[in-house]
Amino acid sequence: MTKTSPKQESITNQATSCSTSTAQKEQEQKTQLKLEKIKHKIAIISGKGGVGKSTVTANLAMAYASEGHKVGILDADLHGPCIPKMLGIERQPLKSGIAGIFPAVGKLGIKVVSMDFFLPSDEAPLIWRGPLKMRAIEQFIGDVAWGELDYLFIDLPPGTGDEPLSIMHFIPDMDGVVIVTMPSELSEAIVKKSVTFAKETGIPVIGIVENLSGYVCPDCGKKVDIFKSGGGKRISDALSVPYLGSIPIDPRVCIDSDSGLPFMAANQSLPVAKAFIEIVAKIKEFLSVNQFLSNQEKKVKP
Amino acid sequence: MTKTSPKQESITNQATSCSTSTAQKEQEQKTQLKLEKIKHKIAIISGKGGVGKSTVTANLAMAYASEGHKVGILDADLHGPCIPKMLGIERQPLKSGIAGIFPAVGKLGIKVVSMDFFLPSDEAPLIWRGPLKMRAIEQFIGDVAWGELDYLFIDLPPGTGDEPLSIMHFIPDMDGVVIVTMPSELSEAIVKKSVTFAKETGIPVIGIVENLSGYVCPDCGKKVDIFKSGGGKRISDALSVPYLGSIPIDPRVCIDSDSGLPFMAANQSLPVAKAFIEIVAKIKEFLSVNQFLSNQEKKVKP
Repeated sequence: MTKTSPKQESITNQATSCSTSTAQKEQEQKTQLKLEKIKHKIAIISGKGGVGKSTVTANLAMAYASEGHKVGILDADLHGPCIPKMLGIERQPLKSGIAGIFPAVGKLGIKVVSMDFFLPSDEAPLIWRGPLKMRAIEQFIGDVAWGELDYLFIDLPPGTGDEPLSIMHFIPDMDGVVIVTMPSELSEAIVKKSVTFAKETGIPVIGIVENLSGYVCPDCGKKVDIFKSGGGKRISDALSVPYLGSIPIDPRVCIDSDSGLPFMAANQSLPVAKAFIEIVAKIKEFLSVNQFLSNQEKKVKP
Repeated sequence: MTKTSPKQESITNQATSCSTSTAQKEQEQKTQLKLEKIKHKIAIISGKGGVGKSTVTANLAMAYASEGHKVGILDADLHGPCIPKMLGIERQPLKSGIAGIFPAVGKLGIKVVSMDFFLPSDEAPLIWRGPLKMRAIEQFIGDVAWGELDYLFIDLPPGTGDEPLSIMHFIPDMDGVVIVTMPSELSEAIVKKSVTFAKETGIPVIGIVENLSGYVCPDCGKKVDIFKSGGGKRISDALSVPYLGSIPIDPRVCIDSDSGLPFMAANQSLPVAKAFIEIVAKIKEFLSVNQFLSNQEKKVKP
């Protein structure tokens, strides 16, 4: 086995899959037109699975939607779509019209497109290889009637393979990525790869969220770091990326997620919600600084 | 977007990627020869990430190796390889000879091949699309000097995409898959897809393991189902597949895994280890029944 630079491989892969047939150009134009109507695009990524990417995505969407923003979620976790269940809209049949496929609409008007809506049953797996997944993601953007949106949050599956690469390829003007981790050293090692991935693909890192960070026994108040603690802060320090905050372990998060109610909608006085409000404030700060810098740039180059 | 049967897509995909060039035929023969020297091949899968596939894989390997069996682990989680860190052999440079690449050797002589050994650093992501991943997995079998093995455990990444499809394609005579889940309804929904995946690809389901099942406060003894409970049993009942058992949440598992010591090696009197010993017994029972049936079949068709 020969060692290959991942960056090289990535470029080769993209070049191979991006042949410029007329049909493809048309699809790209369609995708571009849809994206132009969306002000901010933020992806939620993590090298490691099960760290809470979908929980962070659903609650970010709720936080912004509750302030009156127009919000959408593109669930790019094609094999394990969780967003519909978290918002209580699983297995909805989608309608389509001249403008394209209409997204399902969840709480607070959040628009959602997910592979969950296209599978024949809950148990049906999506047994697809990369090229088909790339096409599906392109269609999730270009063929969907997203309309005008203030924020589109993209929930990505773990890893740095076809789905994240496709998203980065189709949305090159992404505002940035939020990287989710859990405190263990093992997650830390894997999630570091996501930071490098974002840097190599030229997408700004908004910051790192540490989920499942410490558990307080509801009976005796004793705090136990079930999955250790501090991994998120260590990644942030080691790789010089902002630390957004940590979300404690709370059994109610699992119960609420299962019943289609993200904790930001269920009870904003919970410690998890309070922690999340601080994280959202930091993301807002990042976006407004970015907006300011981009406006300045426009002034310099009229 | 048109609805496509996943089974159809899978077959189309495989047909496309399996052109029969001479080089490929040679590689396939090489792979076949390597596999013939391995008595049992068991994959550990899960639709959902972060449920503990690698923990189950590492501990299964330890359980069998501690009885004197020759054991190997093929870490097929190319984007997020965890096995080397769990066995305390991360970032080892592999040597090669006439027989191929020599696997790294962990505790109790467990042979390991993982993408971790081929990446330039801990932080380096593997930014690869599907076709390259399929090739890497083929090389992980055919180009590696596994030698004679009693058991090869294959740790698969979450989902039902390129990696699991490639493994099922290259190892059609797999003994079976162990499916890992965690108790939440959300995981339950996604993990059901893995059961269907195994059934559709014709691989026997050895059974379901429920990980992260209930937490007992070390201070007051209060048991809390942090991620709910019973999801694994529900999948088993709903889809008529065996239930192997549940592993409780224990902060020591995370500490041990991070320090390269699977709990089966650290302390077999821990509740997690006791639960795991029962799971291993059921897997052994499955394998011996299978062996008996296969011998009977041979007797009927001499």
